[in-house]
Amino acid sequence: MCLECTGVLHASQSNFQKIEVVESLDFGKMLILDNVINLTERDEFVYHEMLTHVAMFSHPNPQKVLIVGGGDGGTAREALKHPGVKGIQLVEIDEEVISVSKRYFPSIAVSLDHPKVEIKIRDAVEYMKETRERFDIILIDSTDPVIDQSGGLFSIPFYRDCLKALTEQGILAAQVGDIGFETNIVLGVFNGLKQCFPITRMYLAPVPSYTIVPYAFAFCSKSMRPELGLGLSRFDEGFQTRYYNPQTHGAALSLPEHLRKEFEN
Amino acid sequence: MCLECTGVLHASQSNFQKIEVVESLDFGKMLILDNVINLTERDEFVYHEMLTHVAMFSHPNPQKVLIVGGGDGGTAREALKHPGVKGIQLVEIDEEVISVSKRYFPSIAVSLDHPKVEIKIRDAVEYMKETRERFDIILIDSTDPVIDQSGGLFSIPFYRDCLKALTEQGILAAQVGDIGFETNIVLGVFNGLKQCFPITRMYLAPVPSYTIVPYAFAFCSKSMRPELGLGLSRFDEGFQTRYYNPQTHGAALSLPEHLRKEFEN
Repeated sequence: MCLECTGVLHASQSNFQKIEVVESLDFGKMLILDNVINLTERDEFVYHEMLTHVAMFSHPNPQKVLIVGGGDGGTAREALKHPGVKGIQLVEIDEEVISVSKRYFPSIAVSLDHPKVEIKIRDAVEYMKETRERFDIILIDSTDPVIDQSGGLFSIPFYRDCLKALTEQGILAAQVGDIGFETNIVLGVFNGLKQCFPITRMYLAPVPSYTIVPYAFAFCSKSMRPELGLGLSRFDEGFQTRYYNPQTHGAALSLPEHLRKEFEN
Repeated sequence: MCLECTGVLHASQSNFQKIEVVESLDFGKMLILDNVINLTERDEFVYHEMLTHVAMFSHPNPQKVLIVGGGDGGTAREALKHPGVKGIQLVEIDEEVISVSKRYFPSIAVSLDHPKVEIKIRDAVEYMKETRERFDIILIDSTDPVIDQSGGLFSIPFYRDCLKALTEQGILAAQVGDIGFETNIVLGVFNGLKQCFPITRMYLAPVPSYTIVPYAFAFCSKSMRPELGLGLSRFDEGFQTRYYNPQTHGAALSLPEHLRKEFEN
């Protein structure tokens, strides 16, 4: 099991970040933004499925989806698996992430060309301030809270704008971070979310290329409870996933005892 | 997150294996057997709790426990948390693992001095062939199936002897391995178990010092189903754990979709 880089396929500096694509020993091609692994061919399915489907299958009928970030296309790919989805807005600040992904990860980024996907190249913090649109699902597929670049995406004003942009049954899911080695950062993010959303849950999934401990995601809503899985009847044989299923939906929400105690305080 | 060794506290060659104790950057002290991490102070609780309590809390009233291996004392410590336990036999082949553990991990190994714990220094494969005793719980806390040393503990004849040594409601739990990078070895072990036990389940927990992907354990029994958690009513406020709880009991049994398909075939 080795993340060792065996070749650099791409390296550039966009207006926002350093973008690299490298080949690795065991994880296939990897997209690296400002020296942090953003995705690997080997385990991106866990991340993208869990960011997307816990929210989607907790909603009775999600039609309108907003993705914040997600320029590689993996989250859009997952959201498109739900036939009821009518439109996906993807607000990505860095156009170059999209172009690099289309070149090096075409099987993932192909989702960005789907007619249901509308791409907006702009700062999501500003977009959320201005938009009058309402979404059933908001998926925050950003870089990490430790990176300055995406700091605004972990701020209370941004969360309040997201809450406002959700429909009554609307759900927000966000990637948060590593619970083992960035515990205080992660708990800080959740404290912010709890101040803004009536319902906030932490859920976990293993994304080995990000961290050796389970990776934390946030589920936030006005009224929907993820443990009820109100949309899970839509998960049938035809729904293709590799990690997510109704069992892992529930399992992800089951926190280890030490984390349950910390999180519930 | 770094397993980097910052100092060697102990290195010896026993009759069975190389035994080392090293200090690490982020995982505290680590016990290393034949170059494979056996435990670290930082995450041994996940491994020992999950090896022990999934079986213990699936049994209505476990009284007699057998531990195979487990010379560090962590598994005995967890089994002793169940007040109904009357006796624990610990069959460890390598006395030196016990003496090194008592010296360098006294807070873990102290359980080995408990009056309910009876230590037998011998080969568990032979012991299981000969014993006429019957156990409610057998916990196989061995080294990995990839290591020759413990090969006999992953063999069909050994499993048959274990089955014979279980009471009618008896349960065996075993550590198996890394599902991401030793998938074929792990599935091979489970195929062997399935041939011997009426009920076999895979369950998972994150033990980062062993592997960056979830670590697989086996649950086997004649009649008890772990998802029923027949002993879970005994888990109350007084029962102290850091990872295990009734939620993670169920979550551990929820396999990712790709693994569920592979395992069920």
